[in-house]
Amino acid sequence: MARPVDPSTGALQPVDDVRLTGGFWGTRQELNSTTLLPHCYAWESRLGWIDNFVNPLAEAGREFADSDVYKMVEGMAWDGSFDDRIEDIASKMAGAQEDDGYLNTRFGHRGRDVRYTDLEWGHELYCYGHMIQAAVARLRTRGEDEFTSVTRRAADHVCDAFGIDGNQGVCGHPVIEMALVELYRATGEERYLEQARLFVERRGRPALADIERGRVYFQDDMPIRDAVAFRGHAVRALYLAGGAVDLAVETGDVELLAAIERQWERTIERRTYITGGMGSRHSAEDFGEDYELPPDRAYSETCAGVASIQLAWRLLLATGDVRYADQIERTLFNVVATSPALDGSGFFYANPLHQRVPGEPPDPDAENMRAASSLRAPWFHVSCCPTNVGRTFASLGAYVATVDDDGVQIHQLAGGTIRTPAVTLRVTTGYPWSGDVTVRVTESSGEPSRISLRVPSWAGEAVLTDRGHRRPVRSGYAVAQAAWSPGDELRLELPMRPRWTHPDPHVDAVRGCVAAERGPLVYCLESTDNPTDLSEVRADPSNGLADAGTSPDLADAITLSANDLTFIPYHTWGNRGLATMRVWVPAI
Amino acid sequence: MARPVDPSTGALQPVDDVRLTGGFWGTRQELNSTTLLPHCYAWESRLGWIDNFVNPLAEAGREFADSDVYKMVEGMAWDGSFDDRIEDIASKMAGAQEDDGYLNTRFGHRGRDVRYTDLEWGHELYCYGHMIQAAVARLRTRGEDEFTSVTRRAADHVCDAFGIDGNQGVCGHPVIEMALVELYRATGEERYLEQARLFVERRGRPALADIERGRVYFQDDMPIRDAVAFRGHAVRALYLAGGAVDLAVETGDVELLAAIERQWERTIERRTYITGGMGSRHSAEDFGEDYELPPDRAYSETCAGVASIQLAWRLLLATGDVRYADQIERTLFNVVATSPALDGSGFFYANPLHQRVPGEPPDPDAENMRAASSLRAPWFHVSCCPTNVGRTFASLGAYVATVDDDGVQIHQLAGGTIRTPAVTLRVTTGYPWSGDVTVRVTESSGEPSRISLRVPSWAGEAVLTDRGHRRPVRSGYAVAQAAWSPGDELRLELPMRPRWTHPDPHVDAVRGCVAAERGPLVYCLESTDNPTDLSEVRADPSNGLADAGTSPDLADAITLSANDLTFIPYHTWGNRGLATMRVWVPAI
Repeated sequence: MARPVDPSTGALQPVDDVRLTGGFWGTRQELNSTTLLPHCYAWESRLGWIDNFVNPLAEAGREFADSDVYKMVEGMAWDGSFDDRIEDIASKMAGAQEDDGYLNTRFGHRGRDVRYTDLEWGHELYCYGHMIQAAVARLRTRGEDEFTSVTRRAADHVCDAFGIDGNQGVCGHPVIEMALVELYRATGEERYLEQARLFVERRGRPALADIERGRVYFQDDMPIRDAVAFRGHAVRALYLAGGAVDLAVETGDVELLAAIERQWERTIERRTYITGGMGSRHSAEDFGEDYELPPDRAYSETCAGVASIQLAWRLLLATGDVRYADQIERTLFNVVATSPALDGSGFFYANPLHQRVPGEPPDPDAENMRAASSLRAPWFHVSCCPTNVGRTFASLGAYVATVDDDGVQIHQLAGGTIRTPAVTLRVTTGYPWSGDVTVRVTESSGEPSRISLRVPSWAGEAVLTDRGHRRPVRSGYAVAQAAWSPGDELRLELPMRPRWTHPDPHVDAVRGCVAAERGPLVYCLESTDNPTDLSEVRADPSNGLADAGTSPDLADAITLSANDLTFIPYHTWGNRGLATMRVWVPAI
Repeated sequence: MARPVDPSTGALQPVDDVRLTGGFWGTRQELNSTTLLPHCYAWESRLGWIDNFVNPLAEAGREFADSDVYKMVEGMAWDGSFDDRIEDIASKMAGAQEDDGYLNTRFGHRGRDVRYTDLEWGHELYCYGHMIQAAVARLRTRGEDEFTSVTRRAADHVCDAFGIDGNQGVCGHPVIEMALVELYRATGEERYLEQARLFVERRGRPALADIERGRVYFQDDMPIRDAVAFRGHAVRALYLAGGAVDLAVETGDVELLAAIERQWERTIERRTYITGGMGSRHSAEDFGEDYELPPDRAYSETCAGVASIQLAWRLLLATGDVRYADQIERTLFNVVATSPALDGSGFFYANPLHQRVPGEPPDPDAENMRAASSLRAPWFHVSCCPTNVGRTFASLGAYVATVDDDGVQIHQLAGGTIRTPAVTLRVTTGYPWSGDVTVRVTESSGEPSRISLRVPSWAGEAVLTDRGHRRPVRSGYAVAQAAWSPGDELRLELPMRPRWTHPDPHVDAVRGCVAAERGPLVYCLESTDNPTDLSEVRADPSNGLADAGTSPDLADAITLSANDLTFIPYHTWGNRGLATMRVWVPAI
């Protein structure tokens, strides 16, 4: 029942009454509720990040620790089964809030740095951004409560302090832009929209001090309208772009929307991994130049994957262009699903496409650095990724379907129930292992309407059986129209034969290599299955790839074989002990 | 007249009476004296790094600014023509030295951090290391003076403070190990050797606190004897290895020497660029894993090139193995010669092998960050590289020749005069543009002795004319023996036909590419000469490369052509305005 984005206008409108049941994503959503979010709560409690609100002088964690409490709360709010914990946190926050609405556990207290004296690195507005996103989740799932009233006071304080005649700064880490637009959407309060506009428009003129990494790091090197691609720190760039889309939609700024669409297209073409991952450099967690996509040093931060999905979803709602839904699928299956361990208790922060050495096992009892091991760590010193996975899994249903005046669009092929004014649909599928997707109408208004089913771009073509009539369909949306009756059924058959993928010849780092894919999944070689040193393997793409059965160790994932090599889905690697791994394999 | 390394034993002994006259290296040594060292002095004066000794509360520059003053002094001492400036600096240092010998402009003063409270990052012992290296240069060129007496007091203080019963720490940035052994060699004072031994042996057990980058960053993750390759921060790793070789030689520790030899061999094979550059990662200026050698993100710091030469020179003296001399040549021509602009007034800090975008012009009037531009910067916020080039150019003669009981070995083919007990030689050559090297005996003791001339490994074979008799010689040392008479002449003819070089197939980042080389020089494509976008070019290695004349804009460098492409020597790129560049070219 999640609706993180609720634009007042656009090509498509979100559908929040989507319930996932079992299958690839339903299972993960369940694991999120039973294991992953409680895991985050346990670590944040143990490390004192929650108690910072009671005793800010403790200074537990990094200067942005508050934001991870808020991201966890957002996940808990969408999940719906953690009310007691949210209420407890809200009460602690209320006690820490200053009279004018200011709330941060690191700044502003006696003996601490003065508020807003380090907008470049202090993350105060970033923390508000995540607080506001959590409050929006709360408003849309439970209504007003202490968490939302604390947040409203904080948001009003931000508008007071950073309004048109106030502090002319912006935050070194964007996110408050998206958050304020959404709070406007959730409350109707126009000052939040105006404040988001000020933050987007001030940026890049410049609004912040220069830093060693340069202003490009936090996208303050030029106004966002003037950029040609996303650049600098990947998460910052993508959150900012998301806020710009929200702003463009709510203010009718077609130029701004077009600018972000152009930047997105260029970024997907030249600065995005086959997995959907973004961010080529460890040095500043940043985008590289065009075609700079090293597999071994891919940063591809989990949070950048989450941010990329949030941005693509906004662009999909605004434009209805299927490319955005395709990219969401690729990123969900190959970045967001990759970060958490299959048991939900460890996480990758970076998601490289080539692990040359196994590394050391992460410390199970302490915060880890961002880490270079082939095994996931339970928690990080900078632990943005676990809570970002948590809030994404909790709100996964939000990204499945939309409606417009003509009917319903199913963008992500996940089993569950989709309830819309015209029809209620029951989707049954073993996707991504099976390519068969059945959509059964269980309720209908009886009015004629369309049901559109995304045929992924990787498929090329597929077969749609519409109430018994088979017909070929191509990538894009397969559309069926009828005055639907309960029991009517659509069946999509996608071709699941595994395939070799050749890289763009401009990408120097993987020249002469091939990758294995099957359906929406990128595959990889893991040393666990392949006796040959992975620095010596070669693949002959003239030999066919074939399904090689399911692996019980990998949640029954389908493995592939070719040339005596065994490929596993990329998102499952690193779950069976220390290993090396590679996605791109040198071709014979 | 430089002798930076003077071992008491080893396969070869250094020859310090080498005068370079004109040619590739003589010209650069002259430029160093007239332009490069004065440029460093002007910047260090202007930025207050020298006056820090008068007013340490000024805190100009970074916490290791003292070290750049010392590296400049070392260069000035080898150069021999900056006595007034050295004396002025020595007098300022004397005023800043504390009663017990402690001397650092950042720590230890009222209102400053307490001495030795941050060995991980404080660089206090690192600064002493460079002070001591400068003092050794002074002792060997002028004898004792105020600079050397200040330094002796500081070195004695270090032994007092960090001796066997003292502070058990080491420096986060090695260099003092090499420096103390050399001070022992220059003074005969054994406590300096013992202190160097303590610093080398304490390291890796561990001796320092853990840091976010891990102890591997400063080689404190394991004892140096146990490593299999150089690892972590490249300059730190190479300076430490140099100190370990010095220690091994002076203490007869054959196991330690063998360990460094093994690590060197593995590092050259798997962690070194075709240019000789080391350091694959920007994130920690560090070595990558085996075969992780991205050309675009090559860090290949200039200082790591200098350090690599210093290490290889020590190994050459200890073992006499020609591989070390070959590697020194490759690194001198393709890393150290690349850093400074042809006019001596700008520097590359990193030396990537692929520049995808031209970047912005560096600020001519301010410190630059380490920079990603295709143009060299006059000075850096962290400005270790210019002074490292300066001291290397000033001491270049030291790396040219050695002697042993049988005679003289000429390792680097540079024009000039080499004076040894047995013979004095006049070397005439247009190398590296010409492959002809003439060695004329101008004085002789009349005793029989050998003259050994290095035939570089890239040559494969060559022709030696020994007093009129031509014979083929192979890579290694071409040896001629005689009771030499003035007027006797050896002439080496090296094959200078340009060649295509294919990469090691394990290096993923340049698979399917070729590089152009000629003699000891690596070549590159610069956009200035090639109208096609360098991301689109292809080379056909079945087509021959040919000399294409000399370029007056590039100090009369010989350019190459093939496939309608123009290649220039890598070390000359970036001297004609903003540009893109690549060494490795995708093969058709």
